[in-house]
Amino acid sequence: MSNVLEPTPKEFRAVMERVLDFSETVLARGAGARASDSSRIDEMLTRLDEKEPARADLDELLTTLAAAAATGSDHLHPGFLAYVPIAGAPVSAVADYLAALLNPYVGVQWDSPAMVQLEWNALRWMSRLFGYPEQARGVFTSGGSLANFTAVVTARHARLGNNYAQGRIFMSDQTHHSIERAALISGVKPECIVTVPSDANLRLDVGALDEALTDAGTSDEPPFLVIANAGTTNTGAVDPIQEIVDLAHRHGAWVHVDGAYGGVFVLTQHGRRILQGIDQADSITLDPHKGFFLSMGLGCVLVKEGAAMRAAYMAEAAYLSPADDTSSLPNFADYSLELTRPFRGLRLWLALKLYGWEPFAQALETNRSLAVRLHQHLSEDPRFDVPWKPDLSTVAFRLRDRDDAATLRLMKAINQRGRVLLSSTTIGGRSYIRACFLSHRSSDATLDNLLADIRECLAT
Amino acid sequence: MSNVLEPTPKEFRAVMERVLDFSETVLARGAGARASDSSRIDEMLTRLDEKEPARADLDELLTTLAAAAATGSDHLHPGFLAYVPIAGAPVSAVADYLAALLNPYVGVQWDSPAMVQLEWNALRWMSRLFGYPEQARGVFTSGGSLANFTAVVTARHARLGNNYAQGRIFMSDQTHHSIERAALISGVKPECIVTVPSDANLRLDVGALDEALTDAGTSDEPPFLVIANAGTTNTGAVDPIQEIVDLAHRHGAWVHVDGAYGGVFVLTQHGRRILQGIDQADSITLDPHKGFFLSMGLGCVLVKEGAAMRAAYMAEAAYLSPADDTSSLPNFADYSLELTRPFRGLRLWLALKLYGWEPFAQALETNRSLAVRLHQHLSEDPRFDVPWKPDLSTVAFRLRDRDDAATLRLMKAINQRGRVLLSSTTIGGRSYIRACFLSHRSSDATLDNLLADIRECLAT
Repeated sequence: MSNVLEPTPKEFRAVMERVLDFSETVLARGAGARASDSSRIDEMLTRLDEKEPARADLDELLTTLAAAAATGSDHLHPGFLAYVPIAGAPVSAVADYLAALLNPYVGVQWDSPAMVQLEWNALRWMSRLFGYPEQARGVFTSGGSLANFTAVVTARHARLGNNYAQGRIFMSDQTHHSIERAALISGVKPECIVTVPSDANLRLDVGALDEALTDAGTSDEPPFLVIANAGTTNTGAVDPIQEIVDLAHRHGAWVHVDGAYGGVFVLTQHGRRILQGIDQADSITLDPHKGFFLSMGLGCVLVKEGAAMRAAYMAEAAYLSPADDTSSLPNFADYSLELTRPFRGLRLWLALKLYGWEPFAQALETNRSLAVRLHQHLSEDPRFDVPWKPDLSTVAFRLRDRDDAATLRLMKAINQRGRVLLSSTTIGGRSYIRACFLSHRSSDATLDNLLADIRECLAT
Repeated sequence: MSNVLEPTPKEFRAVMERVLDFSETVLARGAGARASDSSRIDEMLTRLDEKEPARADLDELLTTLAAAAATGSDHLHPGFLAYVPIAGAPVSAVADYLAALLNPYVGVQWDSPAMVQLEWNALRWMSRLFGYPEQARGVFTSGGSLANFTAVVTARHARLGNNYAQGRIFMSDQTHHSIERAALISGVKPECIVTVPSDANLRLDVGALDEALTDAGTSDEPPFLVIANAGTTNTGAVDPIQEIVDLAHRHGAWVHVDGAYGGVFVLTQHGRRILQGIDQADSITLDPHKGFFLSMGLGCVLVKEGAAMRAAYMAEAAYLSPADDTSSLPNFADYSLELTRPFRGLRLWLALKLYGWEPFAQALETNRSLAVRLHQHLSEDPRFDVPWKPDLSTVAFRLRDRDDAATLRLMKAINQRGRVLLSSTTIGGRSYIRACFLSHRSSDATLDNLLADIRECLAT
């Protein structure tokens, strides 16, 4: 075939062999490289900036990508402890390669039914993980923000029908801003978004929630949705889900658990204890790209009563009979905004078929234990304030009796050594350094490096 | 490393070599295989259905995927003419592999700035293609539905601020349902969604639009958004964009062009003529996965005044100063619902750097010429009704003086031969067969097969 867009199988093999040579170099970098490098950003951006695409061959492009990958943060580095890590296990690349190559459409069950079955398998595995029943439904999304949005729209439709400007949503002050954005964009009035204080552990204060729900109950805008965080971004705090569920349901409100960070910890014994009650939530966001250590681009939302989800998204399709989805396989496009989208579920299907649950559970335990040990070390050191015991795998700390600038200088000095990458946040008006462990590559060596870097940066 | 989730570079190479063996078989299938095969769907689904993931090795999983890929439609087949094809050029698999392997976060400019620069390059190439100015912004999405949603939310915020339940949206009766879904989910009242008739060419009737806009102008819900279709799903009709822009702007309404199918035709001379005025639209959806023949998962939305887009999505972030995005690179997460998502732009960057624009323009010309020739053939045959000359690359036809069932039987018979795959639609209450040419693999042979299949199916 002389079609440049469609190389012959042999030509394409040759392309991929060069790509695999490149991969070997990338994967061999490991802990020896820097967790972040911002030394030549401006120079690199100037070099890469192109108003029109100048043609280049594959080798040249791979060289460019290698240089680009070495600029900024390296999410593959075992010392990447910033934000909430998304570690990028290489099985993601295998799955994405296959998904793009085979190119099935999994939005409806009649086009590539067997691929839909595989995605449906992976989705049900998630659903069963949380003790959800057979009638639960859900979709794989690009990440937590779209998953949260999908859940907020479902809750709004289920509880308010078309009067969706007339209900209130309640969440703790530690809630991720994607929830507020989802609420506003889906038509909830700004004044109907109620922030409830968190307690000393940065978990939602159930007493305060009780009061707020009771106050709102008699208003023109009754409660329709309560958010429970299963792992806040700041400190990984897990709200008391069981109490929230009991309380919210008494008030007729939907409970959505934002478990983008913490949901997958249900694989561990500690997680099952701290996530108690999650099976009674009406919907759950989880981010398989976080807890299963995959690459950017795999979120998930589950809805316990799947029919509510479809009703919310099919509201415009008056012509569709309710019988359209009684086949064994769901039409995923009926359950979210997305009609066409990639075959995301393949990543999780492939990872769980190849590895089973156990390596993920173990890696989560390891990450949690690293955080617990870091917390213990820092707590025993009088130079630090370490106010919150980790519910999951995040430790926030600051220099005791010093101003914010001193804490941020310490973080910068640690990051500049390049062995770990930390991020900062503001809690109660004060700056904290965060270390979030959530990589299958993180190990004792990571913690040792971090502790040594802290020690040495403070000594100089 | 003994970590099962992190194979050594050599181990991973071995995995990928087996995957590449598999790819060669997939790519070698070509036109010899069937465009669709629904003969063993039930058996396959029963075989694949798994309540819990039973572990399997890679070879076994690849065998499963091969069988799954052979069930249902094959989007890689040159004879795939159903819906709007998304052809899956293999460069998509290269890009997705690299994106997942390198795993950069491109939602903000400070984490992986060089990768953000590459995505920003690709986005500006799209922007310049439509004659948009420097201040235009946009994002890559999973597909057209999310792109349309992103634009509707932007228009709503730009024109209505927080009173978004109080404006009307206008669109032709041929508009894709993702627009209505986007409007409803973003808080537009059902009664504010106004459908305008299309003319004999199935293009929006500008006279009718004028009347509707004038009527609405004095109401409590004035017009805020008019949709212009650049390629309807039914027949590829392109609305008169220039006239719509002139009219809508006189009424103070935002114009969004849904060019998911037809936008990329701006690469061709015919396309530039028929898309006249698109540079004056306020926002544009295009689907690079369609017009650039990539794999499922690459849509794009462009907004001419980029600041309006950011304002719509950052409405909740009162604490952010407007100065946050004055750096040369945008924080893409400020321009849509998605915070974390895959490095989608790499596909387009890689494809355009490797191939330039020309092969895409040529393939679009080829596809259009196949449609024009099909239209001509069928028009000369008295057995067919072929009411609409193709604006782009789609032909809709039915058996003249026969009932719908006869037309649908013909389609089924053609599809069962397996050399092409057609789909059907309903226009004006009647069933039509659609042939949509939009694959870099389609050629004269595809058209010859289709014509022969039609002839032979009618003869028996």
